[in-house]
Amino acid sequence: LRRHVVLYVGAEARGRAWARFVAEETGDLELRVWPEAGDLAEVAYLAAWIPPAGLFGKLPNLKAVFSVGAGVDQLDLAAIPAHLPLARMIEPGIEACLTAWVCMAVLALHRDLPAYVAQQRAEVWRALPVRPPAACRVGMLGTGRLGSAAAKALTGLGFPVRGWSRSSEVSFEAVVSASDVLVCLLPLTAQTRGILDARTFALLPRGAGVVNAGRGGHLVEADLRAALASGQVGAAVLDVTAEEPLPAGHAFWGHERIFLTPHVGAVTQTETGIAALVANVRRHLRGEALEGLVDRDRGY
Amino acid sequence: LRRHVVLYVGAEARGRAWARFVAEETGDLELRVWPEAGDLAEVAYLAAWIPPAGLFGKLPNLKAVFSVGAGVDQLDLAAIPAHLPLARMIEPGIEACLTAWVCMAVLALHRDLPAYVAQQRAEVWRALPVRPPAACRVGMLGTGRLGSAAAKALTGLGFPVRGWSRSSEVSFEAVVSASDVLVCLLPLTAQTRGILDARTFALLPRGAGVVNAGRGGHLVEADLRAALASGQVGAAVLDVTAEEPLPAGHAFWGHERIFLTPHVGAVTQTETGIAALVANVRRHLRGEALEGLVDRDRGY
Repeated sequence: LRRHVVLYVGAEARGRAWARFVAEETGDLELRVWPEAGDLAEVAYLAAWIPPAGLFGKLPNLKAVFSVGAGVDQLDLAAIPAHLPLARMIEPGIEACLTAWVCMAVLALHRDLPAYVAQQRAEVWRALPVRPPAACRVGMLGTGRLGSAAAKALTGLGFPVRGWSRSSEVSFEAVVSASDVLVCLLPLTAQTRGILDARTFALLPRGAGVVNAGRGGHLVEADLRAALASGQVGAAVLDVTAEEPLPAGHAFWGHERIFLTPHVGAVTQTETGIAALVANVRRHLRGEALEGLVDRDRGY
Repeated sequence: LRRHVVLYVGAEARGRAWARFVAEETGDLELRVWPEAGDLAEVAYLAAWIPPAGLFGKLPNLKAVFSVGAGVDQLDLAAIPAHLPLARMIEPGIEACLTAWVCMAVLALHRDLPAYVAQQRAEVWRALPVRPPAACRVGMLGTGRLGSAAAKALTGLGFPVRGWSRSSEVSFEAVVSASDVLVCLLPLTAQTRGILDARTFALLPRGAGVVNAGRGGHLVEADLRAALASGQVGAAVLDVTAEEPLPAGHAFWGHERIFLTPHVGAVTQTETGIAALVANVRRHLRGEALEGLVDRDRGY
């Protein structure tokens, strides 16, 4: 029986768990955890978060590359040989976790949780006006798998949701200007970098909420600070920042109208993630198209 | 045409809006806002949050009493003449708002938002373990209208939900001991007062979350503080407290593992609330049973 070697480059604990799963559940695959890579000429598949510089030049028999995350923007696409298919991770654990995080963020903004946490610190008991979810319009930037799943869950909670993506017929301006809460779940590309900027915030209804579960690069951080200071944006919930970890002394740390989580919205789950990776490797072995195949020109 | 007079005792802004609605939308009803009550002998219906002491003795022709809130525990039931039917407020605005608040609270505990807010204050960027909603069991104390609506929404978000009420076949111990997040949406009665106490917390899986959207009287506050200090309860989200507003200097104000909102979970909405009140008055005028009729022995 021929063994197909998958090299994993990423968080070590997950790598060890994945290697055990592959050893126990398959007879023909082997997963090696970087840097214990053995003979690099044996490596047929690479599953990576951020591979070390020059790695691709040392993998002469590589057949496909798999991101271990929902995006591929952490990868230097130019460094990956053009003939190799590249896939992002699509697995139900990411979708379920991100949907829950997005619902939490939208509900927290809808019910003024940042303001209540600030009031609690100041020992203030003051009710703010309550509107039902039906009166709180959500704009969803990004209508792919993750955006659609989040939009469906928010609709189920009673929020009117409108989606926008590059291929939408509805205009960006129309969606943003009718969003009491604006959610970014876009892939990060040259076209979407900096999309959450002063111009976009100016389109929002005054006091709207902003949620970024995309990438730090979507947000112009100085513009958000200015919009919060002016009251144009009421509050924000961010899972990603331009620099991660957020640098010491950054204004977002102490900001009362920002909730910050450390890039935990969409986390590839150990069990469902390895099952998805193995299934995608098998697709390649059978000569089928990869799930989540990336269009390198589009960037996602 | 005979005019039926409803006396309203509660927040004045809502009373004014309700009086306008009644004047414009009905020909046979009149809503007066306390203390501008006119001739008290004309009052046929009382819609009240907390009526002033002795009011019932001055209303000789009163035919029914309506709470303007989802509960009746704020009323002194012994002061209300026994022959008067008493109804709690059932209206879709309360249900939608409370469901959103409960989902926010459960999601915040599921995704460790209190811990992340504390980390943010301390400038700490540290990811905590993420489990999908399917691995976070919710126990719902209270399976009436509001509890059922919240349970349905949480189920839609992927949480496994088990409900418990006085009439459940499943035992309280079985539900609580299998609750990673325990939600209280019970009515406050002699049987449920203090139900969130040290004994209940000891049944929970270690580090579980606690949500109280019932009444402050359900929670033994000192027991929650002790359970948070020991780590038996991981964090809590409270919309109600024993004394409201929460007194200055109370330990809940500054507690990093408690999110506190000032009794805003279920707020009777102006538009849907008055429509429900008018519909219930009309039921009485037609000789039909009131919606939300309270069983005074049961207390809800």
